[in-house]
Amino acid sequence: MLSMSPTERDDLLALAGELGDLARAETLAQFRPEGGIGAQNKLSSGFDPVTEADRAAEAVMRAHLEERRPQDGIFGEEYGVKHGTSGLTWVLDPIDGTRGFMSGTPTWGVLIALCTQEADGPGAPLLGVIDQPYIGERFSGGFGAATVSGPLGHRPLATRSARALDEAVLFTTFPEVGTEAEGAAFARLSRQVRLTRYGMDCYAYALVAAGQIDLVVEAGLQPYDIAAPIAVIEAAGGIVTDWQGRPAHRGGQVIAAANPEIHAAALEHLAT
Amino acid sequence: MLSMSPTERDDLLALAGELGDLARAETLAQFRPEGGIGAQNKLSSGFDPVTEADRAAEAVMRAHLEERRPQDGIFGEEYGVKHGTSGLTWVLDPIDGTRGFMSGTPTWGVLIALCTQEADGPGAPLLGVIDQPYIGERFSGGFGAATVSGPLGHRPLATRSARALDEAVLFTTFPEVGTEAEGAAFARLSRQVRLTRYGMDCYAYALVAAGQIDLVVEAGLQPYDIAAPIAVIEAAGGIVTDWQGRPAHRGGQVIAAANPEIHAAALEHLAT
Repeated sequence: MLSMSPTERDDLLALAGELGDLARAETLAQFRPEGGIGAQNKLSSGFDPVTEADRAAEAVMRAHLEERRPQDGIFGEEYGVKHGTSGLTWVLDPIDGTRGFMSGTPTWGVLIALCTQEADGPGAPLLGVIDQPYIGERFSGGFGAATVSGPLGHRPLATRSARALDEAVLFTTFPEVGTEAEGAAFARLSRQVRLTRYGMDCYAYALVAAGQIDLVVEAGLQPYDIAAPIAVIEAAGGIVTDWQGRPAHRGGQVIAAANPEIHAAALEHLAT
Repeated sequence: MLSMSPTERDDLLALAGELGDLARAETLAQFRPEGGIGAQNKLSSGFDPVTEADRAAEAVMRAHLEERRPQDGIFGEEYGVKHGTSGLTWVLDPIDGTRGFMSGTPTWGVLIALCTQEADGPGAPLLGVIDQPYIGERFSGGFGAATVSGPLGHRPLATRSARALDEAVLFTTFPEVGTEAEGAAFARLSRQVRLTRYGMDCYAYALVAAGQIDLVVEAGLQPYDIAAPIAVIEAAGGIVTDWQGRPAHRGGQVIAAANPEIHAAALEHLAT
């Protein structure tokens, strides 16, 4: 598939956009009902809400893929793995940031990625989409180009240039970040930067791609949480790895950086 | 002015909307430039950026008020106090959440309120607007009615019904909240609720008015940070006070609650 033609690439990017359109309609239909929403607890311990919208959005995307690309694999947050024969797998998170969704914030998103297929799971992403349905904003990237479509029109995406860590803006969603040790590593890094902000869910990755912030650092991620952000950020000129500088598409500890310089500077403080 | 006619009230609400339109254009013109924005430090100690957008938006609102309501007072974040003779004062924060603005998040807002004038500063708000220019969303409230206009159309706003604290969703912008003692009080409350989220700037108050969340708790606020949220939330059925249950329109420690029951339950944990 690395010998994919430009037409094939465009078709795949267009298909990812169609999936985004379908998921946008399903998620928005359930967003911000009168008086807010409840949700079931997916795990009996802890707080991991799943909404009807989450399931409906993944189902409609899977149905569309079955029709358009039956040969591809699918790895979705809600409905799991479908093995394919093409060497490609679609990695889907219908609502990344379900707690944000339940709270009505415009920070959750639909994550769609197309990855190579490895023996034991999805490989490196070829393309990705981060869609924020309420704002009507879509960040797309793949094959070396990244764009955003939204309130300010259609624009190319480019990450920001290198700057010192003490001029950098760092995001993560939850202040505790992950385990106690992961939280301590994050705190070390946070003390080095100009500004640390919280609560943006997947939208923080879009802000790296859009050249607005320097770093996102998170832990405990699943592959479907990070495949699409990797594709968008790398196509915009950034770099995404785990906290040891290795590929991050299997999730876990993730650092997304605007450029190699800030990535290297931040990694020094995350190392344990 | 409490004997204001319905026409006068409508005119004042319409004028607040005109101010919002003017500020929206000025702020959006500077939002998300290529590579992100820099800003001056307003205070030599600490991090309180002021952008050109902040100043331009307040200037254009003040000019419009000079033309339309020269008799009213103005209390703005950027250009300070203008004394009036009408007994009414416009309280303006052209960009609430400048750090969010600088980071490209859709969480900052334009805050516009019309307050009674007391001897030593603005009094209780009569109407307010929370505008998020990038989303194109405006939350307005006053004289007992509140509405939102945005991506899902034009809708009435109503806060959510009472529920137990352990089912409640709590927001604040910065995890440290305020002083050490204020942070400790917030942490006590946070341990009682189902979910605590961060980073929403003034947008969190809009989510209370929209019935999506239960509580916002902050400290160290200025009058222009809270006058508009008070008007919108109270018109939607909620309640906003300081941490002792007193009026909050002068800022300081603020709790915004969806209903009197959750307000009372939360206050117990904030009391020192």
